[in-house]
Amino acid sequence: MKSKLTIIKIGGNIINDENQLIGFLSDFSQVEGYKILVHGGGKRATEMASSLGLEPKMIGGRRITDAANLEIVTMVYAGLLNKNITAQLQKHNCNAIGLSGADANCIKAHKRIVREIDYGFAGDVDKVNNDTIKAFLDNDITPVFCAITHDKNGQILNTNADTIASEIAKAMSRDFQVELVYCFEKNGVMMNIDDENSVIEKINKEKYQQLKQENIIADGMLPKLENCFDALQNGVDKVLIGNPDIIKNKNQKFTTLSI
Amino acid sequence: MKSKLTIIKIGGNIINDENQLIGFLSDFSQVEGYKILVHGGGKRATEMASSLGLEPKMIGGRRITDAANLEIVTMVYAGLLNKNITAQLQKHNCNAIGLSGADANCIKAHKRIVREIDYGFAGDVDKVNNDTIKAFLDNDITPVFCAITHDKNGQILNTNADTIASEIAKAMSRDFQVELVYCFEKNGVMMNIDDENSVIEKINKEKYQQLKQENIIADGMLPKLENCFDALQNGVDKVLIGNPDIIKNKNQKFTTLSI
Repeated sequence: MKSKLTIIKIGGNIINDENQLIGFLSDFSQVEGYKILVHGGGKRATEMASSLGLEPKMIGGRRITDAANLEIVTMVYAGLLNKNITAQLQKHNCNAIGLSGADANCIKAHKRIVREIDYGFAGDVDKVNNDTIKAFLDNDITPVFCAITHDKNGQILNTNADTIASEIAKAMSRDFQVELVYCFEKNGVMMNIDDENSVIEKINKEKYQQLKQENIIADGMLPKLENCFDALQNGVDKVLIGNPDIIKNKNQKFTTLSI
Repeated sequence: MKSKLTIIKIGGNIINDENQLIGFLSDFSQVEGYKILVHGGGKRATEMASSLGLEPKMIGGRRITDAANLEIVTMVYAGLLNKNITAQLQKHNCNAIGLSGADANCIKAHKRIVREIDYGFAGDVDKVNNDTIKAFLDNDITPVFCAITHDKNGQILNTNADTIASEIAKAMSRDFQVELVYCFEKNGVMMNIDDENSVIEKINKEKYQQLKQENIIADGMLPKLENCFDALQNGVDKVLIGNPDIIKNKNQKFTTLSI
């Protein structure tokens, strides 16, 4: 039987709140068994760009990564955030290693092909090096991935953190029984965005189509859920969506996805 | 017999010149056998601080690392420089992994004790985790260290890159026959700083004392050479100082240190 591997993705909202992040990392260090953390960027990159006089460039809710912004996300995601998260986990005796996709060639991507929109230095994932990541886990090392990849031709690329999490989850499912947990500011996928008690506890593919048609799932939740179903259809055992407390208390409400 | 390990440290002057850095990384990727790269910071951190309206704080040629400057060096050294160097090496099929001391707890340090001067978040090295670094080398992974450490209590620290290189060299000498190479802008230690042909080819401890007394070795070269002799007295086999070309062409002049 395959060993269980828990992959947890945290978003900007947790990273933006220092106390919440510190509490989360303490909880994460206590998650038993094999685990991987994937973190998003948060507002620090935007603040840094603004301090340097750069305007963020967004199209359809997605950041356009020009050369100047690529430098900033590389600094903030792979440097400031990734190393501080790693140091915090080390404090809690979790033997974390901070990684970008370039490190040990863990995640190879390619620069997104320009069709209608030129996303700049945005990377779409080609291959997750599951053997290398497994070697870290086998050595009791906990990988902490930021959302920076490379093209194996010397170019750093900026990649969506939700996608990084699902691509790693898919690749690791060859050797592990993978549970993928997306932590964000809500208690789960909601029937009513303003009612924290309206968590939809179970969503399968059919229900997802129905919720999409009824416009209950819309905007930023659509790519997140596409990532989730993509993971489930490609070997991942379980996908959960909820607030960061679900990693320590599974009695609370959250959303479980299945196919 | 122990296997040979080459540890190469490059300074700011190489990093500041993009073409020189790219050429050096291509040469580094071709160095045979086990190898580790340690890189300094260069002027990007100073430029970044200045762009953000921060004044660099220096005492006796050493940077004082306050909280704001610590964020900048963490971003620039561990993020921008470390990941771009790693991605370049990956291009040349050198399976590099970018590391700070926090990653897999490779280098534990403590905040420098305040005596006459408060250096701020400057870290003095306590322990290099040689077993973890050896495990990377055994898996054909080439560590690339930036000069950022941690205190195992959640605090990132800024550490001198020359010292990082010699501390890693000392620790790795338990399992390897270590050659430590300091690459900088000169051809070696010079009798006359203005004459590139005046390289002193061999310096032992006695000669070092003499050159110090004659004021031929002074200023920034003093701590560099202290690091070198410290390494030699603690198990390191060989220490070389020269320009970056010595890693591909040992017919040129450079300085070899011995005890």
